[in-house]
Amino acid sequence: MSKINRKWLLAEHPKGRLDVSHFILHEEKLAELRDGEILIRNIYLSLDPTSRIWADAKESYLPPVETGEVMRGLIIGVVEESRNPAFKVGDIVQGILGWEEYAVSDGTDVSPIPYDGSVPLTAFFGLFSHTGLAAYFGLDDIGKPKEGETLVVSAAAGAVGSVAGQIGKIKGCRVVGIAGTDDKCRWITDELGFDAAINYKNESVPESLRKHCPNGIDVYFDCVAGSILDAVLGQINFKARIPVCGMISQYNSPEPVPGPYNFINILYKSARVEGFIVLNYVERFGEGVNDLVKWYSEGKLKYRIDVVDGLENAPTALNKLFDGTNKGKLIVKLSEEPQL
Amino acid sequence: MSKINRKWLLAEHPKGRLDVSHFILHEEKLAELRDGEILIRNIYLSLDPTSRIWADAKESYLPPVETGEVMRGLIIGVVEESRNPAFKVGDIVQGILGWEEYAVSDGTDVSPIPYDGSVPLTAFFGLFSHTGLAAYFGLDDIGKPKEGETLVVSAAAGAVGSVAGQIGKIKGCRVVGIAGTDDKCRWITDELGFDAAINYKNESVPESLRKHCPNGIDVYFDCVAGSILDAVLGQINFKARIPVCGMISQYNSPEPVPGPYNFINILYKSARVEGFIVLNYVERFGEGVNDLVKWYSEGKLKYRIDVVDGLENAPTALNKLFDGTNKGKLIVKLSEEPQL
Repeated sequence: MSKINRKWLLAEHPKGRLDVSHFILHEEKLAELRDGEILIRNIYLSLDPTSRIWADAKESYLPPVETGEVMRGLIIGVVEESRNPAFKVGDIVQGILGWEEYAVSDGTDVSPIPYDGSVPLTAFFGLFSHTGLAAYFGLDDIGKPKEGETLVVSAAAGAVGSVAGQIGKIKGCRVVGIAGTDDKCRWITDELGFDAAINYKNESVPESLRKHCPNGIDVYFDCVAGSILDAVLGQINFKARIPVCGMISQYNSPEPVPGPYNFINILYKSARVEGFIVLNYVERFGEGVNDLVKWYSEGKLKYRIDVVDGLENAPTALNKLFDGTNKGKLIVKLSEEPQL
Repeated sequence: MSKINRKWLLAEHPKGRLDVSHFILHEEKLAELRDGEILIRNIYLSLDPTSRIWADAKESYLPPVETGEVMRGLIIGVVEESRNPAFKVGDIVQGILGWEEYAVSDGTDVSPIPYDGSVPLTAFFGLFSHTGLAAYFGLDDIGKPKEGETLVVSAAAGAVGSVAGQIGKIKGCRVVGIAGTDDKCRWITDELGFDAAINYKNESVPESLRKHCPNGIDVYFDCVAGSILDAVLGQINFKARIPVCGMISQYNSPEPVPGPYNFINILYKSARVEGFIVLNYVERFGEGVNDLVKWYSEGKLKYRIDVVDGLENAPTALNKLFDGTNKGKLIVKLSEEPQL
């Protein structure tokens, strides 16, 4: 075995916006597999706002990636060699691995994907894994949307927000999405069935919320924090629930950012604000995937993906999530899908 | 009937610190009772941080008191005349009434207190009504302290915080209280059994929290918000719970106040921050009072009261809650207790 593996090592913890200068593209020969190991050829790398968290020096919900280490990333890959009886060549697997073209694993950090070609392989990043499940469990466990309530979703054209809004429609809510381009706003209303969309870049969010949420806001699925959270807090109803899935507006800030000015409404409205990560719900993933697959097969869930080609473009591509130029779930294609 | 009633009318919504200039002391003759009405001689007026919220022009969890109206307040009183068959002269009642010496009620806004002299009448403000119940339900429904966990309480020598900390001890927690004088710190550790106390006026709260909470913070019973909440958020554990009972540090601010700078830890630690008011739990008050009475009779709950004499002193006395000069539950005595 003399394959060459290319990988992005973290060179420096970014303090503000991340760019290619914070990484080093490293090449090395892959060593022979040892007993129990598998060689995975990485096909897709998922880029998520949380990737920026992992690159930070600060502790979050996982230890920071250290400088000199391969950058952490969620991967879909195919087993190319196996010295582990639990995996055979050709198996499609998924796991939190790294920004690299190959991975060597003992099998404990990956899980098989039941890929049979009935849906595109990218659907496992677009809908049936971490993004769809984050939307599913954030609503199921914290948001608890009830029929007739009003659900507001931020980053509503994003991989998680778009699913959260569609689940809200399935649950019988009025759903209002907040996004940053007219194209995204059209997509969530015309294609996904949201009741209204707000382009936060050219509308006053408080005013538009008042217009589109005449009965106030019962559930806010928050992916961004910052001024949009503040605007929502100003219009929440009694016993509002706010699942906090992300705080995109904060990750690139080199300085501490103040919390929302309407924080006191959490008290005045007996509101619940609760952070979560999808990994909290690992034991219930089966239940979540079942519902997502069912709704998808019924035509109630749609997704779109934004594929960037080539490992070398990963650091630059990540910023699409922060400048809003991605259209749907952002994925880097590292190598070709296997023929079924 | 030609009794004179004195009452504090709200003259102006305070923008910052409230003082006597925001009120007018008004005298008027009481009219004859109509059928169905009772005349209550007010004995005790409860002063709470929330009184400041009620005086504000902003909407909160109740409509603001309007200028020209009698200031809203929780009252314990005795029925002096009754034209309502549900009440007889001598009954002791409690209700959200006003800052005045008498109240005329149709009975719908008051409820009887089972006062038999076995505990002081003031115990119903000190322990067995809104303050004790706020501590009880904030912990029971949101904080959910488990044996061995660390509970931090702010305004820990206050009417609510002192009970919250003692309930934490009953539940088997390590309890750390934050208060603003050495006397208060001594009281909560030496008399109430808190494990440690932090005087936020002459200690670094983050440093002292690190010292006294070596295993991090699982539950934070928050009465103050502001910089103390921020310090706590910096040291919370995974799945921390933060019942938000009050935001004393904010009520007197004429300008919008930013939320906590460590807000992002709500996401990183999958923490739950939830506001509540005791009125949310009206249907469970019986259960709460039963437990509080039981623990009190077992010597596990103590309280202290700070009584100010005379209706005329109410506006000035309220500020004791904000400058920290009160020692225990703040009560204004309006008239003499009846002889049993």
